[in-house]
Amino acid sequence: MELTVYLSGEIHSSWREEIAAGIRANDLPIKVLAPVTDHDASDNVGVNILGAEEKGFWKDHKAAKISSIRIKTAIEKSDVVVVKFGDKYKQWNAAFEAGYAVAKGKALISLHAPELTHPLKEVDASAMAVAETPQQVVEILQYVAVKG
Amino acid sequence: MELTVYLSGEIHSSWREEIAAGIRANDLPIKVLAPVTDHDASDNVGVNILGAEEKGFWKDHKAAKISSIRIKTAIEKSDVVVVKFGDKYKQWNAAFEAGYAVAKGKALISLHAPELTHPLKEVDASAMAVAETPQQVVEILQYVAVKG
Amino acid sequence: MELTVYLSGEIHSSWREEIAAGIRANDLPIKVLAPVTDHDASDNVGVNILGAEEKGFWKDHKAAKISSIRIKTAIEKSDVVVVKFGDKYKQWNAAFEAGYAVAKGKALISLHAPELTHPLKEVDASAMAVAETPQQVVEILQYVAVKG
Amino acid sequence: MELTVYLSGEIHSSWREEIAAGIRANDLPIKVLAPVTDHDASDNVGVNILGAEEKGFWKDHKAAKISSIRIKTAIEKSDVVVVKFGDKYKQWNAAFEAGYAVAKGKALISLHAPELTHPLKEVDASAMAVAETPQQVVEILQYVAVKG
Amino acid sequence: MELTVYLSGEIHSSWREEIAAGIRANDLPIKVLAPVTDHDASDNVGVNILGAEEKGFWKDHKAAKISSIRIKTAIEKSDVVVVKFGDKYKQWNAAFEAGYAVAKGKALISLHAPELTHPLKEVDASAMAVAETPQQVVEILQYVAVKG
Amino acid sequence: MELTVYLSGEIHSSWREEIAAGIRANDLPIKVLAPVTDHDASDNVGVNILGAEEKGFWKDHKAAKISSIRIKTAIEKSDVVVVKFGDKYKQWNAAFEAGYAVAKGKALISLHAPELTHPLKEVDASAMAVAETPQQVVEILQYVAVKG
Amino acid sequence: MELTVYLSGEIHSSWREEIAAGIRANDLPIKVLAPVTDHDASDNVGVNILGAEEKGFWKDHKAAKISSIRIKTAIEKSDVVVVKFGDKYKQWNAAFEAGYAVAKGKALISLHAPELTHPLKEVDASAMAVAETPQQVVEILQYVAVKG
Amino acid sequence: MELTVYLSGEIHSSWREEIAAGIRANDLPIKVLAPVTDHDASDNVGVNILGAEEKGFWKDHKAAKISSIRIKTAIEKSDVVVVKFGDKYKQWNAAFEAGYAVAKGKALISLHAPELTHPLKEVDASAMAVAETPQQVVEILQYVAVKG
Repeated sequence: MELTVYLSGEIHSSWREEIAAGIRANDLPIKVLAPVTDHDASDNVGVNILGAEEKGFWKDHKAAKISSIRIKTAIEKSDVVVVKFGDKYKQWNAAFEAGYAVAKGKALISLHAPELTHPLKEVDASAMAVAETPQQVVEILQYVAVKG
Repeated sequence: MELTVYLSGEIHSSWREEIAAGIRANDLPIKVLAPVTDHDASDNVGVNILGAEEKGFWKDHKAAKISSIRIKTAIEKSDVVVVKFGDKYKQWNAAFEAGYAVAKGKALISLHAPELTHPLKEVDASAMAVAETPQQVVEILQYVAVKG
Repeated sequence: MELTVYLSGEIHSSWREEIAAGIRANDLPIKVLAPVTDHDASDNVGVNILGAEEKGFWKDHKAAKISSIRIKTAIEKSDVVVVKFGDKYKQWNAAFEAGYAVAKGKALISLHAPELTHPLKEVDASAMAVAETPQQVVEILQYVAVKG
Repeated sequence: MELTVYLSGEIHSSWREEIAAGIRANDLPIKVLAPVTDHDASDNVGVNILGAEEKGFWKDHKAAKISSIRIKTAIEKSDVVVVKFGDKYKQWNAAFEAGYAVAKGKALISLHAPELTHPLKEVDASAMAVAETPQQVVEILQYVAVKG
Repeated sequence: MELTVYLSGEIHSSWREEIAAGIRANDLPIKVLAPVTDHDASDNVGVNILGAEEKGFWKDHKAAKISSIRIKTAIEKSDVVVVKFGDKYKQWNAAFEAGYAVAKGKALISLHAPELTHPLKEVDASAMAVAETPQQVVEILQYVAVKG
Repeated sequence: MELTVYLSGEIHSSWREEIAAGIRANDLPIKVLAPVTDHDASDNVGVNILGAEEKGFWKDHKAAKISSIRIKTAIEKSDVVVVKFGDKYKQWNAAFEAGYAVAKGKALISLHAPELTHPLKEVDASAMAVAETPQQVVEILQYVAVKG
Repeated sequence: MELTVYLSGEIHSSWREEIAAGIRANDLPIKVLAPVTDHDASDNVGVNILGAEEKGFWKDHKAAKISSIRIKTAIEKSDVVVVKFGDKYKQWNAAFEAGYAVAKGKALISLHAPELTHPLKEVDASAMAVAETPQQVVEILQYVAVKG
Repeated sequence: MELTVYLSGEIHSSWREEIAAGIRANDLPIKVLAPVTDHDASDNVGVNILGAEEKGFWKDHKAAKISSIRIKTAIEKSDVVVVKFGDKYKQWNAAFEAGYAVAKGKALISLHAPELTHPLKEVDASAMAVAETPQQVVEILQYVAVKG
């Protein structure tokens, strides 16, 4: 079964590349979508394209809205949404995207270290799988897409 | 216009009571819904009702799933969802509920101190108003519900 | 049949009052919803409640977003949406609300002078009735709600 | 990410061609849809195909309904809807399409000169980006579709 | 269980009154909605309210569109739709409403003489019950609403 | 714009072939879907595949349900639904499919002789175009799909 | 929060009465809906109201379709669906209703003895709580509806 | 018409292969999706990928949730869902999937021996065809997809 998977959350580690490598290694019929993972490009996209703002709030606002075009469209096109949480940064955007995906009927896989279980219990309660490593996510996707 | 409003997020401050008091003081035709705000009751509801678990993960899982019945039903019944963020705790559940509410077509009002603007920019980008005080939320609800 | 009707568009004439009076005079089981029709209150609601802005764009943005909570919620609660167009002001918000209402499956009644037929042809093409006077709208609502 | 974009609004300037040229120049994986931009063909399509009408209202009505097949189908197939406003003509159809697109969950980009900010504030409040030039729209689409 | 039932179709016989009488006699918690059953009022509602038309097509068009406000709103508000077919008149509107109701997820009960089984097989295939008498419809509604 | 069009209704005339020929002649990017138009095959499909029935009602029921898999799936996959009415047979199935298509948000084109205007006024009121000839339908599809 | 709860499944034990008693004892703002629990009445409703059938298949078919009007309407009106499984009878209808409820976005609570865990794992995987006793269901409903 | 068909239910017989063979033999434009039919792989997928559990309940839970990603995604992508019931095992998952598919608007074909008619009457009541052999299913799919 051909799948489209959106990889949401943490952008300062290599987990997306590991999942993508696993998909390629197993030749899975899966298309991967992702947000812009260049932190500066993402933070400044609003003022870069649409012009400067004096207040930080509006600079952030313009950036986040343009990013939301990409993110919401990607979630809409996906069958499965994987969300990676770490303990660095607030990552409220990751949790927001998880909630958005669940409400849109997408299958959610959460990915995080066991230390984060308690604060992520509401997210995990809506997830179809709670993984600790990218490799586990690849195995789940393999089971979903091609297991005979 | 009669409204139903769900108050999501932070449970260790009195912001819900302030909004409820403002609604009563202005006699607004607004029904308020909320999650269970007794931290212990919420954390232990799974094992309290359905039996003990040895692993913390499953204890949390059972609790969070029962809470999700209340939370998702309340969001479904609401016209407006207010989400309060603070800098204490991870509050990923608050961001999750914000994303869920937006995907369900609810009008989102976020409520937080200006210091949190940057990490909340994705949530704020989907909000119809970004307030800093409960009193501002009451004024918005008044404008929405009864302004002539 | 009990109906909820949202009256969208023109705010500088008395058409809403005429329709409301007709509903009362005929004792129709119809609840009427409306946007805030006080021009200044509507234009300034953002800065009045949430704080000043230096740029006109953001002043307008904050106001229009708070108003949209009221407008979209009202359309969602309505069975019928009446949109009044005049030749004063651009009234793009009226046309926007008409499009929004049609996409949400609401029955649209447009109300305008015959001189505006050509520029309103796309709106009228999606309307279930094109009226020229508030009295005609009242007669349609009477037919829909109580005609034996 | 492959995108489908519908370009709504103003038909007497070359903005659609500029966006299409930018998409080609950047080799973006974007399919562009548009209304019929030949003013006469669009105005007369009803009577041309389905027979003459004596009243202008019905001539317009037949034309606008056939056009709506194209427009609503195109919006339905799109991920992003760009709406261009100018100060020539009433352009209520552009605002109608913007409202329709937003209610269908499409990401809206509005495109207009800053002079039109105030009358377009309700449209802009529902837009994910407010651009002033076609080039800015191309940059946004590039960010959404292919930014690494 | 409180129900709302829309009675669609044939307007020249007393079947609606018989069902309404049965509902009253059994004190069922059922709200009944119906189209306008005064043939002349229904045929002329467009020109009566909105002004004369020279062509029969447009006279019919204006009438049918106003009626559709009532009919589609009533179906939307209903849990069950009963459609009565007879051999008099074409009754394409009855079949149209049956298809509309089924696509909206409403439970359809068709009501007709056995002689009409073959031409109504597509309608009956989507119906949850095929009754021959109003009394049978009342018994079904009683079973659905109050049977212990 | 690539379109999928479902051709519903009358099966004893050559109108589908005329539309298909027009699509080919104009090289339109349109995929055509249709019901089974072999009357006997359609009437007997239930008993032919699933076994004999003594009662005509159940023979018809089994056939109509299998046909509905084809019809409802085809409508779901279509952007535009064309429904042809004639004065032969009851054609309640055609009107049923028209109502189903409209409720599913499909653009409806009705096709019939002017003599049938009055009994079809409810169907026509929900149609985006009312054509009298297959050639007119082809011209509309051309306008919708490829007009520059 | 006012809730509507549908109690699906097993009809030969007193679990519904126990839940209803618990709701009354705790004065919960909960409306309870249920299928017809009189086995004979349910099995024969089709032939009792609509006339005899020679084949068992059609007798069952007519009965099950009338029951489905009640069941699907009740699920549609509910916020929470409780499904009770036992080891008597096949109870495929209970599992069917569970799947239907989940797909409609209702919160599912499954209720069964631990011995049935393995064959019910797919149902439980979609449930928000897996209870073993009616009393546990009452406690969950209390938590959802009124816990402070 | 190209179709996607999901084959749900019984995994210990060769019915899926028979349908697939029939589709190939008749060269039908049909894509077939299926759950994982290796019983052990399916039962242990949770602990195999995500780590061991002491309690059978959680072992089952983790497995069933991962399987549900595959199953719900497959149903979502399908036009037609075929569900096979046998008298071995409880098969509540099959009935659950049938209910889920119907609520998602998919055409359901049930496949079972006539001996199971009575306990499956609720499932059959929502099915568009009730077949006894895989060959009958192939004939139905042929009728739906390619019959001229």
